[in-house]
Amino acid sequence: MKVIEGGIMAPLGFVASSLHCGIKRKGEDLALIYSEVPAVAAGLFTTNRVKAAPVKLSKVHLKDNRAQAILINSGNANSCTGKDGLKAAKLIAKLAASRLGISKEDLLVASTGIMGRPLPAEKIVEAIPRLVERLSRTGGRAVARAIMTTDKSPKEIAVRFRAGGRFCTIGAIAKGAGMIAPGLATMLAFITTDVDISKRALIGALKGSIEGSFNRITIDGDMSTNDTVIILANGMARNQKVTSSGPGLRAFQRGLDYVTSGLAKQIVKGGEGVTKFIEVVVKGASTPEEAKLAVSKIANSPLVKTMVGGGDPNWGRIVASLGASGAEFDENGFDLWLGNRLVLRDGTLVLKDLAKLRKALSKDEAKIALDLKAGRCQATVWTGDLTEEYVRINAKYST
Amino acid sequence: MKVIEGGIMAPLGFVASSLHCGIKRKGEDLALIYSEVPAVAAGLFTTNRVKAAPVKLSKVHLKDNRAQAILINSGNANSCTGKDGLKAAKLIAKLAASRLGISKEDLLVASTGIMGRPLPAEKIVEAIPRLVERLSRTGGRAVARAIMTTDKSPKEIAVRFRAGGRFCTIGAIAKGAGMIAPGLATMLAFITTDVDISKRALIGALKGSIEGSFNRITIDGDMSTNDTVIILANGMARNQKVTSSGPGLRAFQRGLDYVTSGLAKQIVKGGEGVTKFIEVVVKGASTPEEAKLAVSKIANSPLVKTMVGGGDPNWGRIVASLGASGAEFDENGFDLWLGNRLVLRDGTLVLKDLAKLRKALSKDEAKIALDLKAGRCQATVWTGDLTEEYVRINAKYST
Repeated sequence: MKVIEGGIMAPLGFVASSLHCGIKRKGEDLALIYSEVPAVAAGLFTTNRVKAAPVKLSKVHLKDNRAQAILINSGNANSCTGKDGLKAAKLIAKLAASRLGISKEDLLVASTGIMGRPLPAEKIVEAIPRLVERLSRTGGRAVARAIMTTDKSPKEIAVRFRAGGRFCTIGAIAKGAGMIAPGLATMLAFITTDVDISKRALIGALKGSIEGSFNRITIDGDMSTNDTVIILANGMARNQKVTSSGPGLRAFQRGLDYVTSGLAKQIVKGGEGVTKFIEVVVKGASTPEEAKLAVSKIANSPLVKTMVGGGDPNWGRIVASLGASGAEFDENGFDLWLGNRLVLRDGTLVLKDLAKLRKALSKDEAKIALDLKAGRCQATVWTGDLTEEYVRINAKYST
Repeated sequence: MKVIEGGIMAPLGFVASSLHCGIKRKGEDLALIYSEVPAVAAGLFTTNRVKAAPVKLSKVHLKDNRAQAILINSGNANSCTGKDGLKAAKLIAKLAASRLGISKEDLLVASTGIMGRPLPAEKIVEAIPRLVERLSRTGGRAVARAIMTTDKSPKEIAVRFRAGGRFCTIGAIAKGAGMIAPGLATMLAFITTDVDISKRALIGALKGSIEGSFNRITIDGDMSTNDTVIILANGMARNQKVTSSGPGLRAFQRGLDYVTSGLAKQIVKGGEGVTKFIEVVVKGASTPEEAKLAVSKIANSPLVKTMVGGGDPNWGRIVASLGASGAEFDENGFDLWLGNRLVLRDGTLVLKDLAKLRKALSKDEAKIALDLKAGRCQATVWTGDLTEEYVRINAKYST
């Protein structure tokens, strides 16, 4: 497997376009991704009880696991917008599909931006002809930019590998700059590939890839109303078809895992106000649920996040957070590391040198690891530090 | 019932003192509360799996529900300090009790401050004689100050009422400035009263009083390792003894409820960086657990908290947070209020005037209320907004 330049345009047979249609005051806010041939498709969506209109519609359109285009807008989430919101989503999907000459069920939609305001569908409707006209092989980077909200920079990634006798490519873009954990700002990821793959294998590969990537940054199902991950596989690499039992699946899965985990890390690093990437690992938990509880609690603790931001080794906050998590462990029988430094062995302080501790938190990436010694289960979560910039951004988002 | 001036010295028969013993660089950091006669006592402590040494010791000393003195230090939490920490707590309790001429089991201890650092017991030991010498009827306010960490101001409250044929008084002080919800900074509250009351009635009254006060600000049992609420009732009002079935209980409970809820509100308002008090009410939930889940999720959402801080009516964040909480409700059948303004009726926007919405968030106290219309259960939580000052304080706490 080789990491290559580019994003969603790296695989064969995809074109894209983007433009400013007027939802945002400035900057592009509407984008289209199109496969020259119908693609096998799979999607994963928010588990929030409140689902935005585009999520509802795309889920219906994905029932046959076939799609050919994705229409995305930023600046308005079309969420908490009731029946009118769903009508608006249906309208733009229908018009875009018709302009592309494909069935409306083969067009998926996604939105991100402010919640609770009516989607200005007329602006999108008016822009669709231009958007379709502009579709090109070079539009990928601009699309990565057009789907941003408060993101600092576009996020894209691509890999090439051999499967079924051919070189195959996976490319992807994402946005998601708000709270990563607990994740109320929308995370959108669009993945394209030219691999020829069966529906079942594609669905399985996407699900399998989520645990080590996007699920590490969206904790406890606490997602926005719009979170969406979509993959389109158009088969244009003309490899021997990858199936659930076939030989190409492993190479595909590896490539996909690299792409999804890479994007997930980019999302955290580009998070609002984030200056440090934090990995929290808990091993030795007695159940998988407790391992997750513990990493979630620690990674979501404002006191832990501000501590890492300030480079201040006030590790008692980690222990207090662990203690409050509900995970079982013996107060006198767990280990704690900061970076590669063992701080507590069996609950007892073994590293008293504050300067060394401070150094462990001085890098761009901070690692907090715990061994609960209560079992064999493990969980990892990625998050960012909490800074004054985060507060500034979020105190004034809508106005 | 009448609200009166003062705090823990308002009831008859209590004295207190405080001084600087050197745990903190400056400011008083050691305090003693003493009842002239042995008192009936009850305590509630953190449910964190990791309990600080003073919590462990005080729980043991409270087994007989009798106590006469409380020794409190700030600047060091004596938490995550292992066996040495417990030894230190025992040592200072024994010496203070001996100096006071009481049994060591009648002395309770509490600590707050940095975690994971050895308690400098020698400084406390050295200061105990002076501390005991200084006990006086006027020491209450200084004690309220000595137990502070990053608190902006001391917190005290007192009420007088008639019970069992006499005027009785309840007074209290508290500290707790860090994260209120989810509450990793220590909350300490000490309540004194001259009511003559049975052990059973006192324990019941304290437990009953917690739900509408301190439990509203410490969510999901996610407390610090040191959280402590202690009440001492010395009987010096010479009322007809209050019992679980007697007539004075109601007046006592009312007084106690006023004191605990008043302190809880003071704790939130004095929270780190807090500029606005936020009350979140969820009614119409199908179970009490779901009502609590929903209020907790909303009150702990950084996006909701920054939104209130910024006075920005981005109410979609509240809905997204509710949707992620796990509470059951119909997306098209719940109501949302900001302040007294109905924003959503049955999930549909009814207040589109942003200026009015902004006004609802412009006051010192913001109220968010939801009716899920899924049942008859209700929960309330109090929290504060999240500001840049909070981040500044917590990025550099230990150094």
